[in-house]
Amino acid sequence: MNEHIVKSYEEELNALTAETTRMGGLAEAAVADCLLAVVKRDQELATAVVARDERLDVAERDIERRAIRLIALRQPMANDLRKTVAAMKIANNLERIGDLAKNIAKRTLVIIEEEPMTPLTRSIERMGKLVLNRLTSVLDAYSRSDMERAMAVWSQDDEVDEHYNSLFRELLTYMMGDPRTITACTHMLFAAKNLERIGDHATNIAELIHYEITGEEMISQARPKTDPLEA
Amino acid sequence: MNEHIVKSYEEELNALTAETTRMGGLAEAAVADCLLAVVKRDQELATAVVARDERLDVAERDIERRAIRLIALRQPMANDLRKTVAAMKIANNLERIGDLAKNIAKRTLVIIEEEPMTPLTRSIERMGKLVLNRLTSVLDAYSRSDMERAMAVWSQDDEVDEHYNSLFRELLTYMMGDPRTITACTHMLFAAKNLERIGDHATNIAELIHYEITGEEMISQARPKTDPLEA
Repeated sequence: MNEHIVKSYEEELNALTAETTRMGGLAEAAVADCLLAVVKRDQELATAVVARDERLDVAERDIERRAIRLIALRQPMANDLRKTVAAMKIANNLERIGDLAKNIAKRTLVIIEEEPMTPLTRSIERMGKLVLNRLTSVLDAYSRSDMERAMAVWSQDDEVDEHYNSLFRELLTYMMGDPRTITACTHMLFAAKNLERIGDHATNIAELIHYEITGEEMISQARPKTDPLEA
Repeated sequence: MNEHIVKSYEEELNALTAETTRMGGLAEAAVADCLLAVVKRDQELATAVVARDERLDVAERDIERRAIRLIALRQPMANDLRKTVAAMKIANNLERIGDLAKNIAKRTLVIIEEEPMTPLTRSIERMGKLVLNRLTSVLDAYSRSDMERAMAVWSQDDEVDEHYNSLFRELLTYMMGDPRTITACTHMLFAAKNLERIGDHATNIAELIHYEITGEEMISQARPKTDPLEA
């Protein structure tokens, strides 16, 4: 009746995590490219990031469908159930990362119409690199079931917040000093906020890896946060 | 072995949607209260919204756990499976709405330290009322499986975007006119963005109701959008 029924259970579960890993690669590329587009003021690349986002939406829907079918038809228990649920939830986080990268790309198209603001762009670049590194690490941790690496990402959550808070202050100073920069700065502010949110999704993925491996949920409230106001 | 096994399947499914409906009430209250806190400059209420958010986090985890157990142990088919998946995904949207309301409440605590800006507060209030109405309508539609009402919410998505875009311009004008207002305006800008995102979640919920009832997924790309840049 259904081609997937004839596949072995093991194969299906592996295909699910493989697809999630592949989706991780797409999300990582979207983040890297939107950062490059901001820094190089590259309109073509920004447009490409926007166009490619649909692939992530399709991948998320597909992973969710497969995961639910697997739960219903195979009734995975313990480890396998956690693996299935984690794949579904990681895909959800990756889809949101893709949306945020797409939004940064859209804002880049506006920002590059205005005068370049080199110091601010450098700060965005530094924050972006940090966030991208966290994302790369956590996706490595996922594909290798490397709990130690996932926990390293989780415990360094506050670094991104520090960058965001300092960039936030830098942007305010810029805007107050020269009100003509307000439009571009506002878009940069949202771009920075989006990077911070991408960092939060990396933390969520680290928590999901922990849950997949140990069966224990991490309490997000216990996560280090330097500035609760900017949540 | 498990108390839930002895419950009838029907009972379990009803309990799941009832809990999701109840969670909807909590999310709606959080949005209403954070708006009231902005408008009345009410520190106590803002603090209460922040504190109450944990209930939504707990509810989401509980709904997800129940839904997955139901899928694994009862293997719901067709309508029932869609009902279960929709409850899980609506709970996910509600949890995010709660986070956004909490964030507005936190920003309110900063905004009320600064001079009142009555015209801007009025604009936030108008936009907030519109978003809250959409949320109320879509939750009514969910509890009554009222597809027509859900679709009405879905098709009026662009009204919120129009409010957001005009508020965005208003905020820029304010900041440029008086740079001392930049800090408060920036927090208002994020509050407005959060309201817009709450509106997007209401649209997502409308799509999930459509999926639950018809089995067909709506294509979000087809959704009316007045300003693709502000996505």
